[in-house]
Amino acid sequence: MSAVPELHITLAGTERVVAAGTTAGDALEADGRTVIAARVNGEPRDLAHEVAEGDAVEAIAIDSEDGRAILRHSTAHVMAQAVQELFPEAKLGIGPPIDNGFYYDFDVAEPFTPDDLKRIEKRMQQIVKQGQRFSRRAVSDDDAREELRDEPYKLELIGLKGGAGDAAEGAGVEVGAGGLTIYDNLQPRTGELCWKDLCRGPHLPTTRAVPAFKLMRSAAAYWRGSEKNPQLQRVYGTAWESKDALKAYLTFLEEAEKRDHRRLGAELDLFSIPEEIGSGLAVFHPKGGVVRRVMEDYSRKRHEEAGYEFVYTPHATKGRLFEKSGHLDWYAEGMYPPMQLDEGQDYYLKPMNCPMHNLIFGARGRSYRELPLRLFEFGTVYRYEKSGVVHGLTRARGFTQDDAHIYCTPDQMAGELDSLLTFVLNLLRDYGLDDFYLELSTRDPEKSIGSDEIWDEATRVLREAAEKQGLELVMDPGGAAFYGPKISVQARDAIGRTWQMSTIQVDFNLPERFDLEYQAPDGSRQRPVMIHRALFGSIERFFAVLLEHYAGAFPAWLAPVQVVGIPITDEHVPYLERVAERLRAEGIRVEVDGSDDRMQKKIRNAQKQKVPFMLLAGDEDAGKDAVSFRYRNGEQNNGVPIDDAVAEIVTAVRERR
Amino acid sequence: MSAVPELHITLAGTERVVAAGTTAGDALEADGRTVIAARVNGEPRDLAHEVAEGDAVEAIAIDSEDGRAILRHSTAHVMAQAVQELFPEAKLGIGPPIDNGFYYDFDVAEPFTPDDLKRIEKRMQQIVKQGQRFSRRAVSDDDAREELRDEPYKLELIGLKGGAGDAAEGAGVEVGAGGLTIYDNLQPRTGELCWKDLCRGPHLPTTRAVPAFKLMRSAAAYWRGSEKNPQLQRVYGTAWESKDALKAYLTFLEEAEKRDHRRLGAELDLFSIPEEIGSGLAVFHPKGGVVRRVMEDYSRKRHEEAGYEFVYTPHATKGRLFEKSGHLDWYAEGMYPPMQLDEGQDYYLKPMNCPMHNLIFGARGRSYRELPLRLFEFGTVYRYEKSGVVHGLTRARGFTQDDAHIYCTPDQMAGELDSLLTFVLNLLRDYGLDDFYLELSTRDPEKSIGSDEIWDEATRVLREAAEKQGLELVMDPGGAAFYGPKISVQARDAIGRTWQMSTIQVDFNLPERFDLEYQAPDGSRQRPVMIHRALFGSIERFFAVLLEHYAGAFPAWLAPVQVVGIPITDEHVPYLERVAERLRAEGIRVEVDGSDDRMQKKIRNAQKQKVPFMLLAGDEDAGKDAVSFRYRNGEQNNGVPIDDAVAEIVTAVRERR
Repeated sequence: MSAVPELHITLAGTERVVAAGTTAGDALEADGRTVIAARVNGEPRDLAHEVAEGDAVEAIAIDSEDGRAILRHSTAHVMAQAVQELFPEAKLGIGPPIDNGFYYDFDVAEPFTPDDLKRIEKRMQQIVKQGQRFSRRAVSDDDAREELRDEPYKLELIGLKGGAGDAAEGAGVEVGAGGLTIYDNLQPRTGELCWKDLCRGPHLPTTRAVPAFKLMRSAAAYWRGSEKNPQLQRVYGTAWESKDALKAYLTFLEEAEKRDHRRLGAELDLFSIPEEIGSGLAVFHPKGGVVRRVMEDYSRKRHEEAGYEFVYTPHATKGRLFEKSGHLDWYAEGMYPPMQLDEGQDYYLKPMNCPMHNLIFGARGRSYRELPLRLFEFGTVYRYEKSGVVHGLTRARGFTQDDAHIYCTPDQMAGELDSLLTFVLNLLRDYGLDDFYLELSTRDPEKSIGSDEIWDEATRVLREAAEKQGLELVMDPGGAAFYGPKISVQARDAIGRTWQMSTIQVDFNLPERFDLEYQAPDGSRQRPVMIHRALFGSIERFFAVLLEHYAGAFPAWLAPVQVVGIPITDEHVPYLERVAERLRAEGIRVEVDGSDDRMQKKIRNAQKQKVPFMLLAGDEDAGKDAVSFRYRNGEQNNGVPIDDAVAEIVTAVRERR
Repeated sequence: MSAVPELHITLAGTERVVAAGTTAGDALEADGRTVIAARVNGEPRDLAHEVAEGDAVEAIAIDSEDGRAILRHSTAHVMAQAVQELFPEAKLGIGPPIDNGFYYDFDVAEPFTPDDLKRIEKRMQQIVKQGQRFSRRAVSDDDAREELRDEPYKLELIGLKGGAGDAAEGAGVEVGAGGLTIYDNLQPRTGELCWKDLCRGPHLPTTRAVPAFKLMRSAAAYWRGSEKNPQLQRVYGTAWESKDALKAYLTFLEEAEKRDHRRLGAELDLFSIPEEIGSGLAVFHPKGGVVRRVMEDYSRKRHEEAGYEFVYTPHATKGRLFEKSGHLDWYAEGMYPPMQLDEGQDYYLKPMNCPMHNLIFGARGRSYRELPLRLFEFGTVYRYEKSGVVHGLTRARGFTQDDAHIYCTPDQMAGELDSLLTFVLNLLRDYGLDDFYLELSTRDPEKSIGSDEIWDEATRVLREAAEKQGLELVMDPGGAAFYGPKISVQARDAIGRTWQMSTIQVDFNLPERFDLEYQAPDGSRQRPVMIHRALFGSIERFFAVLLEHYAGAFPAWLAPVQVVGIPITDEHVPYLERVAERLRAEGIRVEVDGSDDRMQKKIRNAQKQKVPFMLLAGDEDAGKDAVSFRYRNGEQNNGVPIDDAVAEIVTAVRERR
């Protein structure tokens, strides 16, 4: 009937017949505002991509993970175009999408100033408004070299094509495996070429499809990440599917910035990372020390009740121990370099506690009657992190694990894992985290030790334990370490960020390497199963997570100072000191502000220090054995009898409210 | 009147006139059994030493410190003579007195066997019985070389004469500064020469004056302590003023051996020092971990009550910190070697916590209102000790200090030192030590910093504080470190050994080096005084001292297992488990022995494990809600109501009985 040949495709799972020459955009009836690209046979493509016989086509919406990556990648192009229009001498590096945004690197004579960024942003808005078309075309290597002869970094990337192992971060965005492509930015009506970039795509249909963006900052970055290469200027930006989404993200950033544990650590005098000691090595000041101690004490109490036994091991050891454990084979670059003692004996700081716990298990014969044996230690470990990735307390070089190793019979494994996961989640809840999901890393049969049976059993048990919790369970197939499956607890904090918290790791390897045995009821020697588990992971990191989660306003039981007494005038200091004594007798951490500041200033100071409870007292309160009870949020109850105030505070602390 | 010229001497403080040719022994009318030597003008001399005009003569009794050293030195001669008579090829090394005994080194082809030692001892008894006279004579160097031509080691010592800086340990005993002397051992009647030795003396008048001796053991030892020299065989012995004193000493040794913390540590499964980790680096097993934790908890509680604030600092730091503190200048050889990180940056394990505490003090401006600021940490430090001197937990390479640094105004120093000493002594008493003396180390003006005024003040205050305690005060004049005076608490344990425990050290140096300041009431910047103090010194070492003090039988509050329930038959296990639950609810550490052993065996096991309380139960007990309450010493009360038993145990633990 029709002269145009027909094509059979699958559209979002449904079979459809379309005319030859139909683009993915036509098929999806996409206007490029919400559906901004297509997935054709699993590969992301431009909406302008022509479909072929048998193709399966699906929409990529701008508010999906893939959609945002394309949006951000296209916005990076818009930024590069704006930069080259404003700074014609700027040479292009690479410009990939990243988490929450994008960047592009430029070789320019001078770093960009904040004013430069404003000018670039303005020019970008004009380009967006023009609705320039992203237009893809294939080029030969030689043509590409000719077209990009003024872009030395792009020329270098052409040379790297296909050498994926060699290619630097983000280079794949420019140069795909299947031949080079260039994206032209064309004026919508005239088709005039405005700008072009070597790029794999896909992209938005036009620049007008960028709903909302913002440039964030610029920073120096070495070409392809190596200090041997020239230093470029990297401009970071973000782009979102709507102005509201952008605004929400900027609010989130502001909130995260306010909660930054490094900033709060200084403001609240909790800890510092002195330059004299070194990167990633923190000291806890008295107030931070109190919080940490209370965190540790409560954890210890709960662990004791759950049948854990406490051990202590040193921070340094002969290398021989880590040869035995295998760490020097597969973990050496995460370790501090050795110290040579006693004529050539290498000693190392420990990066993990497990080998030492194994020595304690093996220090004498063990009977099945002693199992499960649960050895716990607040064990400080030292790991070498490159200085570039060290970040406050969340990625440090020295930190204290709340580390336990459980040795049990194969029969006990299921019960142990099950109760362990409940224990872990409940304890995290006690510290105020309550939004979790679980991740289960399962066997990679190519690289693993241990029998099928025990892997299946351990994985099944972990899965059942996880499912029983009624939490979201994310599978990580083949993601387990070679020595056993693992479950990890991910917690969302008050502003929705996820943190990997506890891990429960089954280990079929170390008991073998350390030849650990117990005597079974029949008198035979058997190999125990070993479970590694850290609940906080690192006390320092958990401290930082809680600090950010609470934005410094710790619940009363964790607060370094729980109560501040604030006299209306100096005369009321002795009265408040007597109230304070009563609270101290109940173990409450209380201060009376006897400084020269005026009352309002004292209240502001206590609020800045995020003290949970303020007890104010003047003549009226003192006259009737009362206080004015003020909370962190500014609420205040006057004339509260001292007995009631003390009871309320003691209860809040005791019940960890 | 008399033809014999007279001499004027002072005898034990009284003026006397004696005939020329009078010996010290004549003057003292000493028979050589109790008074065995003399002190002439302050120098120890033989009783045969002829006094001179103006000499001051005093007796040296065999049961004095000096007397025992002479006795032991002479016994070393007797041993050497016996060895050379039995092993004529043996060449002599050196043979000095040491604490509680003596040794002599011999170059022999084969190590001595226990049978050899018995033969030597027997021969020594014969020599003692003969009453050979120790006879002193001066010799020229050349004559000495000729007489001792067969003793190569003695010839070497003659060469060293006067080169005190060069001379090896003990060499001074052989070769004094004032010309060489040889001691001949002569038969009493015939005057026949039995043996001789190059020796400075003095000695007993005769071998018969050795009341009691015993050979202890032999061990290899390098000539003059250097591995480059030949290996000799060292025979150790002991000698005492009476058979009773020898017996008391041997009993003491036996008792000390039974209490050896390394032995008890293994027997009671408290800790071990695994070969894989290395010399001086201990791991605490669960039972040792409990004791240590209870020790730490109680200390922490007391420190909190006394106004200390808890901090945490890392175990490793850039070398820069120890350059600032000066430790790399004057303490480098006590430190572990550096680790190179981040391209050539030296990091060190910390040997002390003070520099890090100073960083915390200096982390922000400080006001006089915050002083005294008392920073406390259970800080694990690492110090390099030669492998030869490392000993169990008492001399380790890694240990945890209960370390505090107090920063105060000069005005506060007196009050602080005074209350500190009381605090320290009371806390030591709580752990069961109650026999102390104090040692005060004062300024060496030649090498010290800080003004006269502040030294005088600090020393005066320390002395007054010490005197107020009513304890023996031993002065150590000029013994202070260059940076301030120190008081140390020496404690005597259950078998009379003294251990240096707490130190209180004033420091005028570090506040200067770290430029520490506080704002005084007048707004000026002032330098605080710093006080270092460790109470246990090292938790590991204090643990070992308590373990030896109590011979493993810790008081109930410290015992790893406080109560063992022992069923008469298996049927009574559930009954005892119910009793155990009640105790656990009170925080008591209790186990019920449900093993297959018979009851008597269970009691023996609990006694071996030094468990303070045993609760036995059979039908009769269960019938009337009672238990049979058995103590570590074997006493047993039957039919004790459970309520009473629980109350007694809880009280004993709570009151630290």
